Amino acid sequence: MSETPKCFVWKDFELQCGVVLQEAKLVYQTYGELNRNRSNVILYPTSYGAQHFETQWLIGKERILDPSRWFIIIPNLFGNGLSSSPSNCKGCGLAQQGFYFTHLDNVRAQEKLLRESFGIERLALVYGWSMGAQQAYHWGALYRDRVDRIAAICGTARVTVHNQIFLKSLRAALTADPAWNGERFTATPERGFHTFALIYASWAASQAFYRHNLHQQGERTLDEYLSQAWEANYRKRDPHNLIAMLDTWLRCDISDNPLYRGDFQKALASIRAKTLVMPSRTDLYFTPEDCQAEAASIPDAIYRPIESIWGHRAGNPYQNLEDERFIRDAVRELLSVNSERSEI
Amino acid sequence: MSETPKCFVWKDFELQCGVVLQEAKLVYQTYGELNRNRSNVILYPTSYGAQHFETQWLIGKERILDPSRWFIIIPNLFGNGLSSSPSNCKGCGLAQQGFYFTHLDNVRAQEKLLRESFGIERLALVYGWSMGAQQAYHWGALYRDRVDRIAAICGTARVTVHNQIFLKSLRAALTADPAWNGERFTATPERGFHTFALIYASWAASQAFYRHNLHQQGERTLDEYLSQAWEANYRKRDPHNLIAMLDTWLRCDISDNPLYRGDFQKALASIRAKTLVMPSRTDLYFTPEDCQAEAASIPDAIYRPIESIWGHRAGNPYQNLEDERFIRDAVRELLSVNSERSEI
Repeated sequence: MSETPKCFVWKDFELQCGVVLQEAKLVYQTYGELNRNRSNVILYPTSYGAQHFETQWLIGKERILDPSRWFIIIPNLFGNGLSSSPSNCKGCGLAQQGFYFTHLDNVRAQEKLLRESFGIERLALVYGWSMGAQQAYHWGALYRDRVDRIAAICGTARVTVHNQIFLKSLRAALTADPAWNGERFTATPERGFHTFALIYASWAASQAFYRHNLHQQGERTLDEYLSQAWEANYRKRDPHNLIAMLDTWLRCDISDNPLYRGDFQKALASIRAKTLVMPSRTDLYFTPEDCQAEAASIPDAIYRPIESIWGHRAGNPYQNLEDERFIRDAVRELLSVNSERSEI
Repeated sequence: MSETPKCFVWKDFELQCGVVLQEAKLVYQTYGELNRNRSNVILYPTSYGAQHFETQWLIGKERILDPSRWFIIIPNLFGNGLSSSPSNCKGCGLAQQGFYFTHLDNVRAQEKLLRESFGIERLALVYGWSMGAQQAYHWGALYRDRVDRIAAICGTARVTVHNQIFLKSLRAALTADPAWNGERFTATPERGFHTFALIYASWAASQAFYRHNLHQQGERTLDEYLSQAWEANYRKRDPHNLIAMLDTWLRCDISDNPLYRGDFQKALASIRAKTLVMPSRTDLYFTPEDCQAEAASIPDAIYRPIESIWGHRAGNPYQNLEDERFIRDAVRELLSVNSERSEI
């Protein structure tokens, strides 16, 4: 898994916002072998702030996605610092009026990569956590005949109003910093990163997580935990990129495109994939209630919450074997059901 | 209710932090008439950011606290801009190393006011919402023989770890502003207020509140709601005061005093008042689970959650008649039970 990531580059990519990228870049990594009839493909898009080498941990023979059987591709989200992002692309400036990436841009780019580089036309599974789940839902609605299964872990097909306020607070936290000049950061936003990390830490774990002192591993104080487990991670990122990914999340809506023209119920009802809708019971922003409501409108949905106190992070259980097993078993069950449209 | 508030002033008040205020000030308002044997007293301390004229709405013949029967006193919290606060008191500077107010300071000042100005030795009820509930619990533990009843609406006797992170994020939001010089604000923290309000709006209402579009009264957009219903209110306050009240909240613990020396269970078990523990089912920071756990350790507790989607704000239902009725009926029931120690 330590291979150099691959890079898919193409010209003149028109984003949903109207901006044309003269050169677009999608960085990705693959795991396992593509079979002869290209029917063993799992797409596993990245989540907020993450890069593929941070999310690949769940790929393994005994883990959630088994590369001895499946050909797994992790495409990096636009804005994550590897694929086209404010930090690496002249045309992707936040300063540019009206610039933003959407998940429509992400899945269109992924579709192009799969088709042009691998000749892949259909996906056995799109698996995603958080913003990864958002991309999985976009695949299900936008390429409805080409996705056999979806595993949407702790994510929704459309951002909720409440979730927007959390995201707006994160965006405001960064841009409140003295280093923000209204268009960009002129230095590291020290104060902004600090507030940003505190907001994230309060939302992404649950009240019960802290009530049971799960933050204290290794006898850490609360401030040590907040600094080491949260702030240090976000500080690795370019703050312009963090904002770009927030802007994508803020606009998440599988019906915000020419195909569905804002008819969200129609978009949900159009998903043909067998869809595992798997929130965490204690997720504070992708709540079980919101996920369940969406599941009710997806024709072939299985609603199965993770009974965990890890909050949103139950869906990325790299420190949490119990939740990993729960997700793994459900995903293996999902994959064991042959779809009407594909056999491997 | 439009009377000028009264002001209780005294000299040389030593705070729990060790600072001595040369002149301390407790601003308060009274409603109704004190009866002859001074047995009809309800103390109703203020909540975070509020001043008495904003919380007195629930006093009325048909409302939660009836002034035709009870003598009701609202004392203003230290730091709220009326009682001693950074904005009105030279010795209360945040810049002063190690300066903070605690609820021990608040209830000691209130006890002094009641005794010296009114000859009141016992309270029929301490009623409080949020930081008001915290003060009610402090009364119950610190003056255990003098409090007959407590109505603790949406508050806990000790701040939880999770709650601390929310508070730290609010504090960081204000002090991230370019106008913060490390000791004080040199101008209005425009960016800081904005982030602060967004964080508060995401926590103090519930996900369900927004899911049911209760923020849309009058067809407001989300941004209008956030600006008008949240940011405008906090902007009325001196940001140094907002920080002082956060620092009190962050330290809330009824056992953090010489009487209990950190033995929280002992402090809870010492409360003799009949105690109505009334969280909101959807409160995101004073969660029902945390309130229920405390209730289990209070000898004469009644645990009764408000089944509301208004989140933390269910406990201050000025726009919400259903929750007001629920609280009113429970409080009247509580007041109708004669304690062993007082009759009116």
